[in-house]
Amino acid sequence: MKKHNFYAGPSILPGFTMEKTVEAIKDFAGTGLSLMEISHRSKEFVAVMEQAQALVKELLQVPEGYSVLFLQGGASLQFYMVPCNLLNKKAAYLNTGSWASKAIKEAKLVGEVVEVASSKNANFNYIPKEYNIPADAEYLHITTNNTIFGTEILKDPDVAVPLVADMSSDVFSRPVDVSKYNLIYAGAQKNLGPSGATLVIVKNEALGKVERTVPTILDYKIHIDNESMFNTPSTLAVYGCLQTLIWLKEQGGVEAMEKINIQKAGILYDELDRNKFFVPTVPNTEDRSRMNVTFVMAPEYVELEKEFNDFASSRGMLGLKGHRSVGGFRASIYNAMPAASVQALVDCMKEFAKMK
Amino acid sequence: MKKHNFYAGPSILPGFTMEKTVEAIKDFAGTGLSLMEISHRSKEFVAVMEQAQALVKELLQVPEGYSVLFLQGGASLQFYMVPCNLLNKKAAYLNTGSWASKAIKEAKLVGEVVEVASSKNANFNYIPKEYNIPADAEYLHITTNNTIFGTEILKDPDVAVPLVADMSSDVFSRPVDVSKYNLIYAGAQKNLGPSGATLVIVKNEALGKVERTVPTILDYKIHIDNESMFNTPSTLAVYGCLQTLIWLKEQGGVEAMEKINIQKAGILYDELDRNKFFVPTVPNTEDRSRMNVTFVMAPEYVELEKEFNDFASSRGMLGLKGHRSVGGFRASIYNAMPAASVQALVDCMKEFAKMK
Repeated sequence: MKKHNFYAGPSILPGFTMEKTVEAIKDFAGTGLSLMEISHRSKEFVAVMEQAQALVKELLQVPEGYSVLFLQGGASLQFYMVPCNLLNKKAAYLNTGSWASKAIKEAKLVGEVVEVASSKNANFNYIPKEYNIPADAEYLHITTNNTIFGTEILKDPDVAVPLVADMSSDVFSRPVDVSKYNLIYAGAQKNLGPSGATLVIVKNEALGKVERTVPTILDYKIHIDNESMFNTPSTLAVYGCLQTLIWLKEQGGVEAMEKINIQKAGILYDELDRNKFFVPTVPNTEDRSRMNVTFVMAPEYVELEKEFNDFASSRGMLGLKGHRSVGGFRASIYNAMPAASVQALVDCMKEFAKMK
Repeated sequence: MKKHNFYAGPSILPGFTMEKTVEAIKDFAGTGLSLMEISHRSKEFVAVMEQAQALVKELLQVPEGYSVLFLQGGASLQFYMVPCNLLNKKAAYLNTGSWASKAIKEAKLVGEVVEVASSKNANFNYIPKEYNIPADAEYLHITTNNTIFGTEILKDPDVAVPLVADMSSDVFSRPVDVSKYNLIYAGAQKNLGPSGATLVIVKNEALGKVERTVPTILDYKIHIDNESMFNTPSTLAVYGCLQTLIWLKEQGGVEAMEKINIQKAGILYDELDRNKFFVPTVPNTEDRSRMNVTFVMAPEYVELEKEFNDFASSRGMLGLKGHRSVGGFRASIYNAMPAASVQALVDCMKEFAKMK
């Protein structure tokens, strides 16, 4: 039976990424060695790293004066590394969910943090739009997509301070004006590649301004000076990211991807708004994530939750169970998710409704 | 032509590890999904993590009261993470090379560090044996194998304080008395698996004694409480580690491996001591690494260095160039390196000598 991969992360990747990785594990770039056992300093692997960095710059139109890094440790390490390098006195954070809250917690270990707004009062089911940022804040940190709660900041906010963003789950899903950001970070395991790599895009001149001594491994400047090879990178993961970037370019880049993602998410939200058995958890349509579509059973059908889950599972739908903070269901439909799988889920919902 | 992989790391792995990884990328554990795109919280991946931890405990006979973790960030992150968690007032460090020096540098950001001895005066070509450890030191940090300089601490030191060790390049190459250690860490990419995973074995009761607030992602206790799933692990790398651990057990475990490694290294050191064209860089036989055999041309043949390198390359020997701090050559002959490849290198040296 065909499986439909709705996992939130690690999540669906293009078949191309898997095929190329298998080839490289068998024989990497004609070296006669496996990608798994070749030095990161071999010229063949250095070329992988350089090509991946160049493609990130090309696809996101990264301006001059920015560096692209592939690090380890995921967004969770960035929660601490960002303020270590960028927070001297005060930073502003927008609290839109669990991951944003974790970022705030770590930043508080480093300096003064102003939480400019929070949607916690409504279980993070919307994106706050009205807030004041202290004029002396060094940056505003945002979490562009909130995987657990199904909300997304779909436009780069227009604010008076530089932005810093956790784009772990929506990077490359749409164009971004990188010039508004001092730093963008993203764990690879949603739109980019297998887990183990973390993408960082950082404005060079934003660095070197804090007074504290930053531990070597947490210092972006060290990684920039060593072109992401200060220590051994996660070679398999970086290779996987490169393949996805190549695939992404072939699809037409982030502009094409945005159109597809609007369409794909539309199919699913339309059904949720139509089908009386289900309710999307995010009421404001402009805040609904194109990456993670969260929904629950309608109040009068709540006892059917397990039945629908079993029904969907029997149709090959995997990873649909919602996060415990929201309950219900979550369909993660990242870049690599084909429209046909989204349609299969919609068909499943229609059929379930008909059966009842 | 058959290639012989003498890279220092990422380095040779068992063919079994590559084959199993390829299979899992095509279809992981019968899920119909690829290992690259499956949730780390799926029951199939949780089983991988649990089996890998259990095999580490079995193979190294880890006593009760220790936890096994698979983290990210390599030894370079451990250089900072170890003192954050274990150094309250004072720690002792043995300086046996570049990696030990880096560990010392990061520990000094955290607390008082006493460098109990250093072999820097002789370009780290021996292991200091005589040193005094302050009675109030919380641990003695050692780097058991020095990849760059070709030295190795082949017996667990007998000292009055708990040990902490960077075993990145010789873990699983011989039995270790884990009970002497508060913590052992190892980047995977030598004897264990592909790059991207970091093994940590830590004594639970050594934790929670420092006064500082440890950032969440750097806190071993958080990782223990979450069974290495506090954040998304490097799934491909952990899977690769598990396959190597399974292979290792099939070879007879670390006792069998030690015998093989003694033999393999012996073949090469015997030739270096015999062949007048070459000189091993480590004079004391008891300090010579079984993992990284470093050697240079004899002084009277130093101009033949490039010629030998080209000759060896033409015979399929890869990664033999020595680190710039030592020059000459480095043959890395980790667990997965077959004796036949070591013999091929020895034959190459013999033939080169005959030609001259």
